[in-house]
Amino acid sequence: MQRIAVFPGSFDPITRGHESVIKRALPLFDQLIVAIGENGEKKTFFPLERRLGWLKQVFGNDPRIRISTYSGLTIDFCRREKATFILRGLRTSADFEFERGIGQMNKMMYPEVETVFFLCAQEYASVSSSIVRDILRHGGDVRQFVPEGILI
Amino acid sequence: MQRIAVFPGSFDPITRGHESVIKRALPLFDQLIVAIGENGEKKTFFPLERRLGWLKQVFGNDPRIRISTYSGLTIDFCRREKATFILRGLRTSADFEFERGIGQMNKMMYPEVETVFFLCAQEYASVSSSIVRDILRHGGDVRQFVPEGILI
Amino acid sequence: MQRIAVFPGSFDPITRGHESVIKRALPLFDQLIVAIGENGEKKTFFPLERRLGWLKQVFGNDPRIRISTYSGLTIDFCRREKATFILRGLRTSADFEFERGIGQMNKMMYPEVETVFFLCAQEYASVSSSIVRDILRHGGDVRQFVPEGILI
Amino acid sequence: MQRIAVFPGSFDPITRGHESVIKRALPLFDQLIVAIGENGEKKTFFPLERRLGWLKQVFGNDPRIRISTYSGLTIDFCRREKATFILRGLRTSADFEFERGIGQMNKMMYPEVETVFFLCAQEYASVSSSIVRDILRHGGDVRQFVPEGILI
Amino acid sequence: MQRIAVFPGSFDPITRGHESVIKRALPLFDQLIVAIGENGEKKTFFPLERRLGWLKQVFGNDPRIRISTYSGLTIDFCRREKATFILRGLRTSADFEFERGIGQMNKMMYPEVETVFFLCAQEYASVSSSIVRDILRHGGDVRQFVPEGILI
Amino acid sequence: MQRIAVFPGSFDPITRGHESVIKRALPLFDQLIVAIGENGEKKTFFPLERRLGWLKQVFGNDPRIRISTYSGLTIDFCRREKATFILRGLRTSADFEFERGIGQMNKMMYPEVETVFFLCAQEYASVSSSIVRDILRHGGDVRQFVPEGILI
Repeated sequence: MQRIAVFPGSFDPITRGHESVIKRALPLFDQLIVAIGENGEKKTFFPLERRLGWLKQVFGNDPRIRISTYSGLTIDFCRREKATFILRGLRTSADFEFERGIGQMNKMMYPEVETVFFLCAQEYASVSSSIVRDILRHGGDVRQFVPEGILI
Repeated sequence: MQRIAVFPGSFDPITRGHESVIKRALPLFDQLIVAIGENGEKKTFFPLERRLGWLKQVFGNDPRIRISTYSGLTIDFCRREKATFILRGLRTSADFEFERGIGQMNKMMYPEVETVFFLCAQEYASVSSSIVRDILRHGGDVRQFVPEGILI
Repeated sequence: MQRIAVFPGSFDPITRGHESVIKRALPLFDQLIVAIGENGEKKTFFPLERRLGWLKQVFGNDPRIRISTYSGLTIDFCRREKATFILRGLRTSADFEFERGIGQMNKMMYPEVETVFFLCAQEYASVSSSIVRDILRHGGDVRQFVPEGILI
Repeated sequence: MQRIAVFPGSFDPITRGHESVIKRALPLFDQLIVAIGENGEKKTFFPLERRLGWLKQVFGNDPRIRISTYSGLTIDFCRREKATFILRGLRTSADFEFERGIGQMNKMMYPEVETVFFLCAQEYASVSSSIVRDILRHGGDVRQFVPEGILI
Repeated sequence: MQRIAVFPGSFDPITRGHESVIKRALPLFDQLIVAIGENGEKKTFFPLERRLGWLKQVFGNDPRIRISTYSGLTIDFCRREKATFILRGLRTSADFEFERGIGQMNKMMYPEVETVFFLCAQEYASVSSSIVRDILRHGGDVRQFVPEGILI
Repeated sequence: MQRIAVFPGSFDPITRGHESVIKRALPLFDQLIVAIGENGEKKTFFPLERRLGWLKQVFGNDPRIRISTYSGLTIDFCRREKATFILRGLRTSADFEFERGIGQMNKMMYPEVETVFFLCAQEYASVSSSIVRDILRHGGDVRQFVPEGILI
C-alpha cells in the first residue's frame, strides 16, 4: 500500500518552518500532497494564486510532492486522494493543544487517518505565518523567514 | 442555603462535551441554570432562538435545570439569581488558563462567587463548538459531536 | 442523597492554598473528608502525626469536615466512605494536566466519582508544599505560607 | 552606555498589571519609553488620545519615563531610540509562548535587542486589557483593574 | 531506502497507550524496532525480563516489528540499526515539551534522525505507566490500562 | 544605586544556554553574581569544585561578574549581597510555571527583589543540564552543549 500524506495549510505566506518540516518528512511517504484549503469566507493576506505559486516554486520539482488546493473538510480531501496520513509541524505547546483537538476530531470522523507530527527545526521554531504577516503590515523585511528565492 | 449554579455559555452549538459536564455536575447543585449570555455585538453562528431551543430539548425535562438568557456580566446574572457557583468544563491547559483569568476577575468583582470546574469526559475531550462550526462551514456531518436528537 | 467529597493530599505541610480551597468549597458539600493518603514507601518531610495534627487544628471544629487517613487507592477510600466527589485545587496548567490524568483514570476505575476543581486563591497561587519544604530545608520562615497558628 | 528600554503595548486600556510591571522594572533602566504602537488597520476600543492621556497621567511625572507613540515595527522604533531592551510582563504560559515567538523573531531581525521579562504582580495576575474591555462592554465597573485615578 | 523506526521506552509496564501508538504507526514504516533502553542506574518497577516478555507477547507475531534492548544513547542505537526515525506518542503538552527537548538534542547529535509523533488514542490519553505503577503499589486492578492478556 | 543581580543555579554542568543568558543580560547590571547554591542533602552529578572551576573558566575574566557559592535561601544571599535582581533564563512554558512559583514566593518573602527573565537563545533552547547529564551517563559527547573549552 502506498503511503500518501497530506500537509494542509493556508501558507499565508509559506515560511521556512513549513519548508523544513515538509522536506524532512518527505522520506517517510511515497507521495506528499501539499494542499491549500480554500475557504471562501476567511480572508487571507495573500491571494490563492500567489500562495500556490510559492508552493510550486519551492517544491515543484520534486516528483514525490504534489501541490493542490481543496475546498471542504481536510479529511474529505484525504479520502478522495486515498491519503491516510496528515502531516503537521509542532512548535509550541499551544500548537500541540490546537492540533490535538483537530487531530482527534478528524480521527472520530475518519478513523483510517492518522496525524503525523514533526518538530519544527529549532532555528525556525519561532517563525509563524501570522508574525510574518504582522512584520509585512509594518513594512519589515521577512526574507530570512520565508524560503530562499521567495519574493514577497 | 440552596446551592445554585450558573453554567454560562454561548452554546453555538451545544456539544456532547457541554451535555456531559452539565449532567455529571447536576447532583452537586439544588438548581443549575444553563444560561446563554446575549451579546449584541458578537456575531454568533446560530441565532439565539435555535441555541435556546436545543438547550430546552436536551435539558428541559429536568426540574433541577433551568434554561435562561441574560445580558450584561455573568456575575451580575449570578447575583440576580442568587447563584454562588459558576460551573465550567475543562478540556485543555489553554482552557484552564483562560478560565482561571475569568474566574479570578469574577472573584475580585463578586467575592461570594466560586467557579467550579469539571473535566470534560475523555471521549469528548477534543470536541469544541468552534471546531464543530468549522466542520459545518465545510459541509461535514457533526451528529456525533452534538447531543442525540439535535438536528443542525 | 448526601453530597460527600474527599479532599486527598499529603499535606506535607498544609498550606494556605489548601486551607483556602477547602474553606471555599465547603458550602458545596454536606460532608467533606480531608484525608491523608498513607503510603509506606514514599518518604514524607513531616511524620503523619504532625500532618494530621495540623489538619485537626485548622479544620477540627467544623462539623461538616472530617479528618481521616487511608491507605490504598483514593477511589477505594471514596467507595468505602460513599463519597462521589473528589475535591482538588488548581494553580497552574502543569497542575491541571497532572490532575486531569489522575481524574480520568479514577473515572475509568470508578465511574460514579467526579473530580471537582476549585481555583487556588490568587494570593496563594504560587504557594506549594514542595517550595515550602525547600524553604524549610534552607532555614527560612514559612509562617505566611501556612495557616495561621501552625507552628512548624 | 545608557540602558534604554521600550515597553510597547496598545494599553487598550492600561491596567494595574501594566502599571506594576513598569514601576517595578524602572530601577533597571536609565530610560524607559512606554510606547503605543499605532496600527492603522487594527481597531482599538479606546482612541489613541485617551490611551496616551492615561499613560501621561500615570507615568508623566517620572523623569526616567518617556511616553511615546510609533508606527512600524517595534524593533525599528527601538533602533531609532537607541533602545537595546524591550520590556514585557508575563502572567500565563500562554503569554510566555506568544512573547517567546515575538522575542525570538525580533532577535533574528535586530540581534542587538534583548527582551526582558518581569512577572506580573500576583494580585493582578489575572487582569488583562481584553477582559477589562469585556467587562466594560457589559456595563461593569473596572476601577479596581486600572490604575488609581483613571476614569473610564 | 528502508524506513526503519525505533520506538524507545522503558515499558514499565507497557500500556494500552503504547500499544495503540505502535499499531497505528506501523503502516508508516518498513520495520519498527520496539526497544527497551537498559540503564543500570535507574531502578525500574518490573525487571527487564518481564517487560521484554510483554512486548514479545503483544507484538511478537508481527514480522514488521522487532523487539530489542539496548544500552547507551538512543541515537547510537538508531545508528547501529540504520534507523532514521524515532517514534513517540504524545498525550499532554507537558509530554510535548519534554519530547521536544529530547528530540532537538537528538537532532543536534545525529542530524539524520527525525522524531515522528503520533497522538495517543483519546480513550487512553490519560493512561501513563507512572500512574499504572501507582495503582499497582496501592493494590488496584490495572487490567483495563494494559494490553489484553497481559498478566501483572 | 548599583544594579546588582544574582544568577543562581547548580550548573551541574554549565551549558551554553546558561552562558548565553548570562552574557546577554550582563549589560543590564553593574554587577552580576553567578552563584552556586550549595545544598548538603541534594546529590549533584559533579562535585562543587568542578562546577565552580567551570564558572571561573567561562566568566572569570569579566570584572562585572563575580563567581560565588552560598548556602541557605537565595533571597537571603541576595540580601547579604545587596542584590535586588535575580536573573533566570526561560526555555519552555514548564520552565516559566516553575520559575513563576519560585519568583512569587521570593517576592512574598523579600519584596525588594525582582526576578528578571531572559529568553534562552533559540539555538540552545532545548539544552538542559539534566539532558546533558543523561547523555553523559550513556557515554555520549556533550561538547556542543557546554561552553567552548569546558572539558567534561
